[in-house]
Amino acid sequence: MSDYNKLTSALAQELKAIVGENRFQCGEQVKEDYSHDEMPIYGRFMPEAVCLVESTEEVSAIMKLCRENKIPVTVRGAGTGLVGGCVPINGGIVLGTERMNRILSYDMKNLVVHTQPGVLLCDLAADALAHGLMYPPDPGEKTATVGGNVSTNAGGMRAVKYGVTRDYVLAMTVVLPNGEIMKLGKTVCKTSSGYSLLHLMIGSEGTLGIITELTLKLIPKPEKDVSLILPFKDIATAIASVPEIKLANLDPQSIEFMERDIVDSSAAFTGNAVFPTVVNGKEAGAYILVTLVGGGEDELTVKMERLSEVAEKTGAYDMLVVWTDGLKKDVWAARSAFLTVIEAETKLLDEMDVVVPVDRIAEFLVYTHDEAEKQGVRVRSFGHAGDGNLHIYCCSNELEEDEFKRRVRKLMDLCYAKCTEFEGQVSGEHSIGHAKKAYLRQSVGDTAYGLMGAIKKVFDPDGILNPGKVVD
Amino acid sequence: MSDYNKLTSALAQELKAIVGENRFQCGEQVKEDYSHDEMPIYGRFMPEAVCLVESTEEVSAIMKLCRENKIPVTVRGAGTGLVGGCVPINGGIVLGTERMNRILSYDMKNLVVHTQPGVLLCDLAADALAHGLMYPPDPGEKTATVGGNVSTNAGGMRAVKYGVTRDYVLAMTVVLPNGEIMKLGKTVCKTSSGYSLLHLMIGSEGTLGIITELTLKLIPKPEKDVSLILPFKDIATAIASVPEIKLANLDPQSIEFMERDIVDSSAAFTGNAVFPTVVNGKEAGAYILVTLVGGGEDELTVKMERLSEVAEKTGAYDMLVVWTDGLKKDVWAARSAFLTVIEAETKLLDEMDVVVPVDRIAEFLVYTHDEAEKQGVRVRSFGHAGDGNLHIYCCSNELEEDEFKRRVRKLMDLCYAKCTEFEGQVSGEHSIGHAKKAYLRQSVGDTAYGLMGAIKKVFDPDGILNPGKVVD
Repeated sequence: MSDYNKLTSALAQELKAIVGENRFQCGEQVKEDYSHDEMPIYGRFMPEAVCLVESTEEVSAIMKLCRENKIPVTVRGAGTGLVGGCVPINGGIVLGTERMNRILSYDMKNLVVHTQPGVLLCDLAADALAHGLMYPPDPGEKTATVGGNVSTNAGGMRAVKYGVTRDYVLAMTVVLPNGEIMKLGKTVCKTSSGYSLLHLMIGSEGTLGIITELTLKLIPKPEKDVSLILPFKDIATAIASVPEIKLANLDPQSIEFMERDIVDSSAAFTGNAVFPTVVNGKEAGAYILVTLVGGGEDELTVKMERLSEVAEKTGAYDMLVVWTDGLKKDVWAARSAFLTVIEAETKLLDEMDVVVPVDRIAEFLVYTHDEAEKQGVRVRSFGHAGDGNLHIYCCSNELEEDEFKRRVRKLMDLCYAKCTEFEGQVSGEHSIGHAKKAYLRQSVGDTAYGLMGAIKKVFDPDGILNPGKVVD
Repeated sequence: MSDYNKLTSALAQELKAIVGENRFQCGEQVKEDYSHDEMPIYGRFMPEAVCLVESTEEVSAIMKLCRENKIPVTVRGAGTGLVGGCVPINGGIVLGTERMNRILSYDMKNLVVHTQPGVLLCDLAADALAHGLMYPPDPGEKTATVGGNVSTNAGGMRAVKYGVTRDYVLAMTVVLPNGEIMKLGKTVCKTSSGYSLLHLMIGSEGTLGIITELTLKLIPKPEKDVSLILPFKDIATAIASVPEIKLANLDPQSIEFMERDIVDSSAAFTGNAVFPTVVNGKEAGAYILVTLVGGGEDELTVKMERLSEVAEKTGAYDMLVVWTDGLKKDVWAARSAFLTVIEAETKLLDEMDVVVPVDRIAEFLVYTHDEAEKQGVRVRSFGHAGDGNLHIYCCSNELEEDEFKRRVRKLMDLCYAKCTEFEGQVSGEHSIGHAKKAYLRQSVGDTAYGLMGAIKKVFDPDGILNPGKVVD
């Protein structure tokens, strides 16, 4: 955009001096990876330079320089996003946090961890477990950074019981677009001390400030868990069981749904058919996967009995208990493989990450599949039945890109409008980026969208931080 | 303040036309109650008029009128606040929500309740229970309105397990200072759809918009609970047990602490000595009160055994099981009576509602008591040991008001500075109002405070909504 300046070689030298030669890429040296995230259909945009920062002070120095010279800056974690959030659509600098990957310290009195933002979710989760603790948020993409998770308020599979990333962020260090360093929050869970800038920063996709340190809440590692597979006739009967499961006082950790076709694909892909397709002579059309946690086998046995009653009452064909570690691993590996499976089957991909009230899931899915058929788009879906967050993937198969995009556009216009009609949200955890801005505006309305834009101006009057994302 | 206009009789007529004669008070008719909250030491300020609104549309019409004429508007729920948040320090209109006291509907598929903001917490809690559901936030003041609870992000005694009010607000209808009606959030728990204006509104003390409807998350009513009293030698040993209790995987609902003197006063006041003062021949100096919840007696028995081991290890003199409904009621009635007891014992009162990291509670209390003694101020304290939220009351006894204020000011300056040093927050749940603005600024720093002020300007450019609160 003409409002921004291009990086001069003098500025490039200054940037290189801040981070050092080994952590600076410019011009031809910039790796192609930095031009896109995991959804390249939204376009590839090369940055003019990449700075792999290692400290808050480096970030601050870079922002001061870029602000003075009106150079756009886009923060990037692991680049696993699906809406172009970390893609430098106006050029400028990509500020990569991949080297800020140190878990700094655990505070066992207050049950928190202090960490840099570039730590991968899988690394944090494993390290916390090694300390006898659990980091509850569990998004499907384990190689995302925790900074990215906070910036998108990622949810994941354990949100039904534990909530989302937002609920585990106690404090952060933020570099503002002018280079100022600001600390938000403290190592406490309760506060009523002014407007929550912390909550404003969470989910703001790197458009208001750059997170350079995080204090995250942990919980003691649960003692025991068990997963249960409930096969149903079809998706409507499967989803209808969810409110009943939630009312049964089982406090489940996860309630996932999956349709038969994706389970079949996953079985073919992983070579491991863990979900039964025919139960007592009946073809399963959809599944609910529930995980319960508790203090021991006795407690879980009581809960399972209660779940079994709900399953019978709501028309499940059976309830398969996944008790052993090996089988548990297989089942959740199959679940985690869904996106990989979908990617392997198609040339081009696009996606929706809507959330609808739990009792509208089935209706929304039927609508989506019907419309997809009309538009000639193959759709695969799975998601979080317990919280209404649906991941709906549009697959091109052999369609040409332009035609695919045209059809998907039409389908998405219809589906997002339906989502708004159903009192849903545009995104549960993948965020807005630059791909979903129009749908966000439509969903929240001009007044709320205008307020978001005005807030962006308060934090970033020059519009240099991740421009073109979330709001205009 | 000279920036605002006074209410003319023509404007008063227009306001009266909006709400009707019965719900309008003006001039001499205005009841004295509307000039203060429960902490009158921060001053009494009479509004020029009071409108007892009943609908979003009435609020919108009033705001349009007041904005055009630059009349300040201060929203008031039940007036149970402790920092002057609902007091019209610049005059103008008090907009009372006490008539917006209808619980609108329950959605048993999504486990939410739609309610007006003027419903009292105790009424909502009881009504939810009658539906087999629980509204988890449980602030001590049961006759506050839920709208007030949301505006202050009230926490309460069950926050250790369930979180605070913020965690239960899914959606709201808000009237902006210009009269526009905006809906924020949906009936879903997961979202990553733009900046969270919902979370910005929560805890903003009626300075950014007026909440006229709420969608609150509920959970199934827990089946069984038990409370346990752990007497300790003194406050330091009592508090030292808290991290151990939290690490024991008991998922307690509450961990409260109380010092001996307030327990004695409460026993004298209620005539019911439920806390043992001498245990096995040893004088108890402080107590930890734990509540555990679970699916049945067996589950709770296992947890109690584990808690008993922690109690022994951390030096508790005993662990008294409060299992029967009658005794449970007495114990929690004693706990809930603390503020009433303190109020009954003193002429004048002031308070701090700081939050400190759990492992600093004892140190902070010792510091406070030492400094209070030096300043000649009698201090009574109790609070939420599980989350570090301390309620510290300064009692004048027979001191004259000016002298009491002078001493308290000095004590508070020291204590809030210590709280900041300990990485704590100014307020856990009572908020900022006009009483704690200076301490908020000191605690969050000029940059964050400046951003809060700029956000206020975005929502309320004329500064007519609850002026003089939170930020200047």
